[in-house]
Amino acid sequence: MDKYDAISPLDYRYYTGEVFEKLQPYLSENAAVNYQIKAEIALAKTLAEKKICSAKIAEEIEAAAKKVTASEVYEEEKRIKHNIRALVNCIRKKVSESAKPYVHFTATSNDIISTAEALRIKDATEKALVPELIELERTLIEIAEREKETLQIGRTHGQHAEPITFGFTTASYVARLGGRITKIKEAAENLRGKFSGAVGAYNASSLLIKDAREFERAVLEKLGMKPGSHSTQIVEAEYMTDLMHAIASAMGVMANTADDMRHLQRSEIAEVAEMFEAEQVGSSTMPHKRNPINFENVKSLWKEFMPRMVTVYSDQISEHQRDLTNSASSRFNTEIVAAALIAATRLKSAMQKLEVDKKMLKRNFEQSREIIPAEPAYILLAAYGHPDAHEAVRRKTLEAEKTGKKLIEAMMKDKELKSYFSKMPKAQIEMLKNPEKYTGLAAQKTEDVCREWRERLKVK
Amino acid sequence: MDKYDAISPLDYRYYTGEVFEKLQPYLSENAAVNYQIKAEIALAKTLAEKKICSAKIAEEIEAAAKKVTASEVYEEEKRIKHNIRALVNCIRKKVSESAKPYVHFTATSNDIISTAEALRIKDATEKALVPELIELERTLIEIAEREKETLQIGRTHGQHAEPITFGFTTASYVARLGGRITKIKEAAENLRGKFSGAVGAYNASSLLIKDAREFERAVLEKLGMKPGSHSTQIVEAEYMTDLMHAIASAMGVMANTADDMRHLQRSEIAEVAEMFEAEQVGSSTMPHKRNPINFENVKSLWKEFMPRMVTVYSDQISEHQRDLTNSASSRFNTEIVAAALIAATRLKSAMQKLEVDKKMLKRNFEQSREIIPAEPAYILLAAYGHPDAHEAVRRKTLEAEKTGKKLIEAMMKDKELKSYFSKMPKAQIEMLKNPEKYTGLAAQKTEDVCREWRERLKVK
Amino acid sequence: MDKYDAISPLDYRYYTGEVFEKLQPYLSENAAVNYQIKAEIALAKTLAEKKICSAKIAEEIEAAAKKVTASEVYEEEKRIKHNIRALVNCIRKKVSESAKPYVHFTATSNDIISTAEALRIKDATEKALVPELIELERTLIEIAEREKETLQIGRTHGQHAEPITFGFTTASYVARLGGRITKIKEAAENLRGKFSGAVGAYNASSLLIKDAREFERAVLEKLGMKPGSHSTQIVEAEYMTDLMHAIASAMGVMANTADDMRHLQRSEIAEVAEMFEAEQVGSSTMPHKRNPINFENVKSLWKEFMPRMVTVYSDQISEHQRDLTNSASSRFNTEIVAAALIAATRLKSAMQKLEVDKKMLKRNFEQSREIIPAEPAYILLAAYGHPDAHEAVRRKTLEAEKTGKKLIEAMMKDKELKSYFSKMPKAQIEMLKNPEKYTGLAAQKTEDVCREWRERLKVK
Amino acid sequence: MDKYDAISPLDYRYYTGEVFEKLQPYLSENAAVNYQIKAEIALAKTLAEKKICSAKIAEEIEAAAKKVTASEVYEEEKRIKHNIRALVNCIRKKVSESAKPYVHFTATSNDIISTAEALRIKDATEKALVPELIELERTLIEIAEREKETLQIGRTHGQHAEPITFGFTTASYVARLGGRITKIKEAAENLRGKFSGAVGAYNASSLLIKDAREFERAVLEKLGMKPGSHSTQIVEAEYMTDLMHAIASAMGVMANTADDMRHLQRSEIAEVAEMFEAEQVGSSTMPHKRNPINFENVKSLWKEFMPRMVTVYSDQISEHQRDLTNSASSRFNTEIVAAALIAATRLKSAMQKLEVDKKMLKRNFEQSREIIPAEPAYILLAAYGHPDAHEAVRRKTLEAEKTGKKLIEAMMKDKELKSYFSKMPKAQIEMLKNPEKYTGLAAQKTEDVCREWRERLKVK
Repeated sequence: MDKYDAISPLDYRYYTGEVFEKLQPYLSENAAVNYQIKAEIALAKTLAEKKICSAKIAEEIEAAAKKVTASEVYEEEKRIKHNIRALVNCIRKKVSESAKPYVHFTATSNDIISTAEALRIKDATEKALVPELIELERTLIEIAEREKETLQIGRTHGQHAEPITFGFTTASYVARLGGRITKIKEAAENLRGKFSGAVGAYNASSLLIKDAREFERAVLEKLGMKPGSHSTQIVEAEYMTDLMHAIASAMGVMANTADDMRHLQRSEIAEVAEMFEAEQVGSSTMPHKRNPINFENVKSLWKEFMPRMVTVYSDQISEHQRDLTNSASSRFNTEIVAAALIAATRLKSAMQKLEVDKKMLKRNFEQSREIIPAEPAYILLAAYGHPDAHEAVRRKTLEAEKTGKKLIEAMMKDKELKSYFSKMPKAQIEMLKNPEKYTGLAAQKTEDVCREWRERLKVK
Repeated sequence: MDKYDAISPLDYRYYTGEVFEKLQPYLSENAAVNYQIKAEIALAKTLAEKKICSAKIAEEIEAAAKKVTASEVYEEEKRIKHNIRALVNCIRKKVSESAKPYVHFTATSNDIISTAEALRIKDATEKALVPELIELERTLIEIAEREKETLQIGRTHGQHAEPITFGFTTASYVARLGGRITKIKEAAENLRGKFSGAVGAYNASSLLIKDAREFERAVLEKLGMKPGSHSTQIVEAEYMTDLMHAIASAMGVMANTADDMRHLQRSEIAEVAEMFEAEQVGSSTMPHKRNPINFENVKSLWKEFMPRMVTVYSDQISEHQRDLTNSASSRFNTEIVAAALIAATRLKSAMQKLEVDKKMLKRNFEQSREIIPAEPAYILLAAYGHPDAHEAVRRKTLEAEKTGKKLIEAMMKDKELKSYFSKMPKAQIEMLKNPEKYTGLAAQKTEDVCREWRERLKVK
Repeated sequence: MDKYDAISPLDYRYYTGEVFEKLQPYLSENAAVNYQIKAEIALAKTLAEKKICSAKIAEEIEAAAKKVTASEVYEEEKRIKHNIRALVNCIRKKVSESAKPYVHFTATSNDIISTAEALRIKDATEKALVPELIELERTLIEIAEREKETLQIGRTHGQHAEPITFGFTTASYVARLGGRITKIKEAAENLRGKFSGAVGAYNASSLLIKDAREFERAVLEKLGMKPGSHSTQIVEAEYMTDLMHAIASAMGVMANTADDMRHLQRSEIAEVAEMFEAEQVGSSTMPHKRNPINFENVKSLWKEFMPRMVTVYSDQISEHQRDLTNSASSRFNTEIVAAALIAATRLKSAMQKLEVDKKMLKRNFEQSREIIPAEPAYILLAAYGHPDAHEAVRRKTLEAEKTGKKLIEAMMKDKELKSYFSKMPKAQIEMLKNPEKYTGLAAQKTEDVCREWRERLKVK
Repeated sequence: MDKYDAISPLDYRYYTGEVFEKLQPYLSENAAVNYQIKAEIALAKTLAEKKICSAKIAEEIEAAAKKVTASEVYEEEKRIKHNIRALVNCIRKKVSESAKPYVHFTATSNDIISTAEALRIKDATEKALVPELIELERTLIEIAEREKETLQIGRTHGQHAEPITFGFTTASYVARLGGRITKIKEAAENLRGKFSGAVGAYNASSLLIKDAREFERAVLEKLGMKPGSHSTQIVEAEYMTDLMHAIASAMGVMANTADDMRHLQRSEIAEVAEMFEAEQVGSSTMPHKRNPINFENVKSLWKEFMPRMVTVYSDQISEHQRDLTNSASSRFNTEIVAAALIAATRLKSAMQKLEVDKKMLKRNFEQSREIIPAEPAYILLAAYGHPDAHEAVRRKTLEAEKTGKKLIEAMMKDKELKSYFSKMPKAQIEMLKNPEKYTGLAAQKTEDVCREWRERLKVK
């Protein structure tokens, strides 16, 4: 297959280089077949363990199963129109007559499929996605710690509000992403398998095995998994729903981070920039452009993949002991894991190349220097007994705006307010006159948040 | 306001009687204002506790705040175009000059709003939604236990598969709903408040309070809450996102239950029916119709409210220290809680009126009696050494279909298969001839699942 | 009902004043019943017209029907659990014995419901929503025309690109909103009714009426409607799906407009501002804030209502001749119409109060004045034969950036480039030196777009 | 690339054989580059036409462009990080020095990308998707016509309602799919391109071309397209939004058809079946299963792709003259077109193999034979003057249910009703006694609908 004949942007564009190396072992169709084989092997081994077949037969099946390839299975599926029966046939062809009956013995297709799907998505999450998210978290922590004292004007509604630090801004992403990583780990750990047969009542396995539920636990334990609380033909959907939710909401945090960065990179704000490589072209006609394409891409991946939660929620509904209206849709769950890893890789790399421009941070702060004292002044005036400090200050800001006077001067010269200001200790007056000090606990909170997440996620 | 002038189906149609009684204290706009008042009172009390104002002033503020009504606040908001400042003005009007400065002191609007919203949704969830879900769970458990031995043909792909029991079918909903209730409780318990000021760095409160984070904890503790891990102007969205996810996915389980029931009620299947009241009209032209309108309604509520998760996920993104593009959208979170309660109430009531028709269950089972032995026969043939039992049985089923012969007879008379059958003990042959016994661990699993959830959710 | 006991933000917050006046006649539950009554009357009149009942009976039914109220119908529904039969009973109570049989005669519930729903949403769209959208369009046209020559720096990726005019920016919304209004009108005009009976095959009406399809057309014609192409119990969903799509995508255009405006209002950009009223409070603690709350609200309404298209698409699926899993969900279609009108009203009012700050527009343009010539220079260099003009200019911009030299000077002094510049006529050199002239057809295109939409939508 | 290393189910599973042949020329990444080349060639030709370059240069560019491959472009993109500049470089390398300046001359990247994307999606829709949908439509028409008289019990709420014909059922899909095909064609025809430069104001092209808008029209005309009404850096999103809506809603109609068929295939209903191939395996453990996997798959594709409309709607919003937060998301539009074709192919093939079981249709009808007369009886009783016929019949159905009597007999023997029945002509009494005749206009409507769509879509 020519890569550029592919139809999915994931395959022809995003799933390359390191991303490919990280995901192919879990999320490719080859991996899907490999994980089904792992499930068949665990079954065979347990059959031997429980003396249902001999150890030799189990070994024979294991050896045969490991030789089966995805394309071989697809070939057989074309003939018989059933993918797991195709896999079983491929294994059976490779074993002796006496081993043949024990291939897939007592299992229904979905014992294999549900278990293999859960396991490969668990592995992809734990072995590929989470480590990458932790690298992103490390990057964010390092920026937050480095910039914990770097003055920045805080913004609400896109308007200048009160001063904070760039580290404090970043600590917000640290805390939120940290929380999401924790959720993802919990949900991945909680994915379940099943070996309860065609309708979940252990009909087939109970024919020959005394404690069919114990047998199920034994098979799954070999794969590092536990059975669902009440499977039918399939494991209850909610274990997967929870993981997809955790991943989708982590993409939301990444998208928020990216959105903030691209806005801070606007020509007029310019507090951050992504370093450009010497050969890099910004625009095909405007040679001077420095576009935040990586941040835009992270947001865009979220726009594509977040709505797929609707599909995930729809797949919760399966009629009676199951219908197969998730045959196509549930296959795309793997894409959600992949997209989260792609977004994390992009964002990590963009953040690592982030230049924080202290000059511009200062310039933007200065734009609002005069007006920032409005809040602390109102609080202090109230503290010293002014009965309507908010309104008094609000009117002073309107006056300052109209007359061009400095707000702090306008306030301090105001007849009514004067008496209150005179009660304030010097330190408070100083704060009003030097609003760059009015950053509250920004630096300290940044430190604490970073310390907490370094410890919780073992980021050294 | 004339109720039938309302525009939202929630208000004019679903939010009546008991539902109204249960939700109004938390989810109405009157409740919203009451919870904001609770937050203002907790603040005043903490100010007194920390000696920032006197105990008397705090009491004065509390007394005044309790008298404020939603319509009063809306009136003031019309004038000044700011809802929390409007509330503050309403309280301030009712207190002495010396108390005035301490109303809302050091707080920003969103300290109040974020905290009050989290608290009322927490209360609505814990005090209204969860109890109703537990009543639904109890109803399901009772049906499962009662019908644990009631034979039912299991169905996959809408096709008869292997036999189970009606109790086992129901136990699936018990387990899944139980799991969702647990998730909902965890997420509600984990909602957070904030008193960290306009950009989250405790700028204002740090002016006057030594340990502003401890102060925040003290205010929130009075409301039974904890602060967010890193708030900006608002609490991080993810606490709410997780709760909405838990609720939406619980609606998914309810919708699945409803879907199954309405299909089991189809004219040709008719295994269940909802008791009709004597006066009830099924159709305006077809007087004989008995339509599963309650189950349809539960599915329909899911169709309306599940997609709103897209909005919830979108509200994760708030630029910088916050934008207000969630001003309308986040208000609708309350509707999701309400819808889940309405769905639970409907489903509970429909399940309580459910008639399980054992005759029809038997009739439907009988339809497939002849073909059910295919699976156990294939398993047993393999167990006794047949190298290709699945294919052998598959061909026999085709033969039986064509010739009209009974499958079990066709198999037992088959020259090749005979020798395997002859090795089987009587009990196994009996099972093949009496497929109603082929229900595996259906009854036992039902019991275990019901016991587990009775204990975990304290359903007596 | 106390308005602030309502649970839906639509009812307690957004559906007030003018909005209420405009929507109540179509979208309230009272209106729903009124439109069902209209359908029953149209039926009665047609029965008389076709001599199935007397004209007197039709008149009697009409008079009776007009007296029925929503609360009366809801009361009866409580008793019999069927809303249309309840309506029919209410009418029947008010007519003579001889008229009774002809109330609802040959109709099934959904003949009335489908027809009434389509008609009231058609009316709400045509009589309330479209006029408001046209007022918004007029506002946008007026701004575009007024500012067609007002220089603005164009932006791509949030970065300064090439100059345009503020009118040209606005003309983009004019064209896109104009297109959406056209789509909405077409789709509303195309909503359909039905009088084809319980399963759509005219079973009942064919009993007594010779040409039942002609009869259906006659009933609907009285309501200004046409029948669906192939109804079952319900009209095919797609007519409504198309209208909801048109409305949702119009909200997308409004959200884009709002997003642009709130970003242009950022403290550092400040090209526009929404006039504040004297009493208006921007923030409860930061008295100086001027927040773009109306633009934020328009975006937020889109975030809430756009995802509801998922529900609309889900309601396309109705099993066999219909299931009722749209019983709750389709009721919420009215909210989409309402939300679009609310958004239009907000955006119109915010745009009417918009102040365009030419000084700031100029200042922002000046920031990029030096670099803008990069594009025209590259085009002209190529035109005069430079074989690699893009790369040559790209390198010059890097050089200018590093050395602080002006790009235009750096280019014109460059040995290699000199010869190309010397071939250019003065006018072209002038353009390079005065990039404020480099606005292409911005003004002319603005004029043309405004003229086109004034004509097409008859905006005088 | 190993096909089974792909990560997208589209690539490794669904995009094979005929589907691949049909889609690769439009929707692969190779196709994307080919279409960009077409756009560059159209530009070069127009430059020659307008005497901006020589005809020879245009020919040289055309020849060179046709030699460029996707992998070559991707290689160059790796170096310079800009995909269109990479394409331009690849073309430039292959032409003489004098031609070099005219490659991509005056164009911005998105002139090429927007135009090429619109054109290839237009072609994919018109040349691949629509023909396949018409083949599906033909299949449905043939079934409808063939089965127009085949009695079927109509169903609402999953309950037996009034009789129709299987053809009438199918005609519903014919009409709805026909309507969607029409919408798709209109929307595809209406896709637009652009050559208006970096911010849409024709800044660059106006430098050298007198009427830049006429120039744009000339370029696009060569590609069979028209310009957008008001492009910025990109064409207004709504042209594409409308097409995606049309396609998504067509998938909704297909999903509804598939849902109905899989329910009609339920073991207890069994009115239809999909022919199985001799080698086909239904289940890995239940050899007798005949699962409606193709219908399930069509529904599942809808579940996966319908929610992507949320992404499409989100991509309507692009800040100012464009942001690039659609860089990933809009790439997935091609997948929606592909999915619709895959669904159409599946559904067509499943419908072609559909077996309609008249015996089972009859059996299901017979189940409700006794109760069907309720509706016509109520209508006729009313017609002959009974003042409360609906209630009278409703009570009779309850009586019949309880006593086991036949409804028609119970009614005709009823003292009160007798007199009304005695007024009815024989033909009406016959209808009540032979409810299989009570199919209204089912057959005639079927014929009309099929004729209409054969004509409108030229299906011979």
